[in-house]
Amino acid sequence: VSGGSDSVALLWLMKDLADEGRVDIAGVAHFNHQLRDVAPDDEAFCRALAARAGLEFRSGTADVRGRAKHDGVSIEDAARRERYAFLRDVAARAGATRIATGHTTDDQAETFLLKLARGAGLSGLGGIYPFRDGVIRPLLDVRRRDLRAFLASRGETWIEDETNADVSNPRNRVRHVLLPQFEAAFGDSVLDAIARAAALAAEDGAWLDAEASRLFSSMAGPSPGGIALAEAPLRALPAPLARRVLLQAMRAVAAGREVGSRHVEAAIDVLNGRCRSAETPAGHWEHIRGNLVLTSRAGAEVEPAPARRPKARVRTRTR
Amino acid sequence: VSGGSDSVALLWLMKDLADEGRVDIAGVAHFNHQLRDVAPDDEAFCRALAARAGLEFRSGTADVRGRAKHDGVSIEDAARRERYAFLRDVAARAGATRIATGHTTDDQAETFLLKLARGAGLSGLGGIYPFRDGVIRPLLDVRRRDLRAFLASRGETWIEDETNADVSNPRNRVRHVLLPQFEAAFGDSVLDAIARAAALAAEDGAWLDAEASRLFSSMAGPSPGGIALAEAPLRALPAPLARRVLLQAMRAVAAGREVGSRHVEAAIDVLNGRCRSAETPAGHWEHIRGNLVLTSRAGAEVEPAPARRPKARVRTRTR
Repeated sequence: VSGGSDSVALLWLMKDLADEGRVDIAGVAHFNHQLRDVAPDDEAFCRALAARAGLEFRSGTADVRGRAKHDGVSIEDAARRERYAFLRDVAARAGATRIATGHTTDDQAETFLLKLARGAGLSGLGGIYPFRDGVIRPLLDVRRRDLRAFLASRGETWIEDETNADVSNPRNRVRHVLLPQFEAAFGDSVLDAIARAAALAAEDGAWLDAEASRLFSSMAGPSPGGIALAEAPLRALPAPLARRVLLQAMRAVAAGREVGSRHVEAAIDVLNGRCRSAETPAGHWEHIRGNLVLTSRAGAEVEPAPARRPKARVRTRTR
Repeated sequence: VSGGSDSVALLWLMKDLADEGRVDIAGVAHFNHQLRDVAPDDEAFCRALAARAGLEFRSGTADVRGRAKHDGVSIEDAARRERYAFLRDVAARAGATRIATGHTTDDQAETFLLKLARGAGLSGLGGIYPFRDGVIRPLLDVRRRDLRAFLASRGETWIEDETNADVSNPRNRVRHVLLPQFEAAFGDSVLDAIARAAALAAEDGAWLDAEASRLFSSMAGPSPGGIALAEAPLRALPAPLARRVLLQAMRAVAAGREVGSRHVEAAIDVLNGRCRSAETPAGHWEHIRGNLVLTSRAGAEVEPAPARRPKARVRTRTR
């Protein structure tokens, strides 16, 4: 619970379910990202809210800005990582089996447009999953305005995050400029349409990723400082699966560096013989004896590939 | 060639290729949709252009507004159908093996956002294919502004379609309002990012559709006035394929009526036993003896399913 309308509504709706005996609430967790001056007020608001609902309260914090800088990722990414790490820790200590978050249809549509604009191509458009890795999002089919109307009808309040109004932030730009333009052009239900497309793209992407993961395991073998993929079966794959196998190979050795669809294109150019080799943030692609070989930039630090066995031996090269 | 910047640029670029002996141009085709008062001027412009390029010219026309009304489809849909029917006819008479159209990255991005806003979920986001059914779109990776710069550099002119400025038309709203907002928020290259997502979604969708088509043929059998799908194999499918098989079944009997993702959801509710039956624009879904049966609304007018053989016999019902 951040104290915003979505999570406050989640708290009261879950409380109603608990009162009916349909769930047990282990407690309310609040994470302080240290990004707002008023963060202590947010925490106090959530603590008082939990007390009023008769629920346990746990809070945690991390220097999100510092983590982002250190890890070379965006503040939004660092915030998400730290927040979920905290939530999983609190859930484990409390013996909770699920973590519920307050994501709405609005969040789903925003995330889709944001990923679209950033060039997410492959499975990246997927968006937010209703249930994944122990996290449930029961409000994903509900609009934010409806949650606010619900809270108002109960006489409940929430915190308006003034940083949400800063349209230099891309997510806020999507929320406050682009989505209203979509609604003006196509009517009020366009947000539901976008969220539905996001959910279906997520479903398609999850299955294609799982198929590609299975194929990757069967095709990938170790190579000094990298991964070797047997070319013949790779060439026989339909493009949606071949792309994802190449992406998974790069992700396996990228050590957190960002790999995108244009790096997949580079790998495909090598596979198709259009280029002899290609450099990507993950490493160097080239042909070696019937294999398409990715050699990590990180050298010896390469993470082991989740491979079973090599399909063809790769000669050790002097690096 | 419509006379707009994209198709005029296509003409001159193809002419350059022809002059290098890399293609043979059978001719220039222009379709008059009878939607603009200035349509005769457009045709005269294109005829003069073809003459200047030393190319054969063929024109055709249809009452697109009347067709749209008669068939109960949008003017845009009717225009596309009539235009491609004309192009295929001209190509066949000329012995041409390909039809080249002037679609750009801008068209790809516009189409994606338009379909997104209209709730296209399954494979509908696919957008425009670079090569499909004998139609090639060599400018799909090129931006409209670059084509205009190319024409300006050659001293060539084109027709500005004043109906393009009418933002009550959803496509124009996307072009003139939404895409500029995306560019303002995310920079100039956002249009390429959207077009790339559209191309990848098209590739994913085309493969999933082909898989579903193969599965549909293996699962579908005839039923009086409709189609019977064997339930056991249908339930065993991953959701992305199950949804597409159900969609294909409905499209096979819908006789042109629009079927969308919410009708697929209705069919899934019947499959999962959440509902006993469901009505869709294609027809009525229900369980009959181990089959999920779709009975067409059109009754005896049902098109035959592209099925090979029934997986289970369906008892003839009195209708």
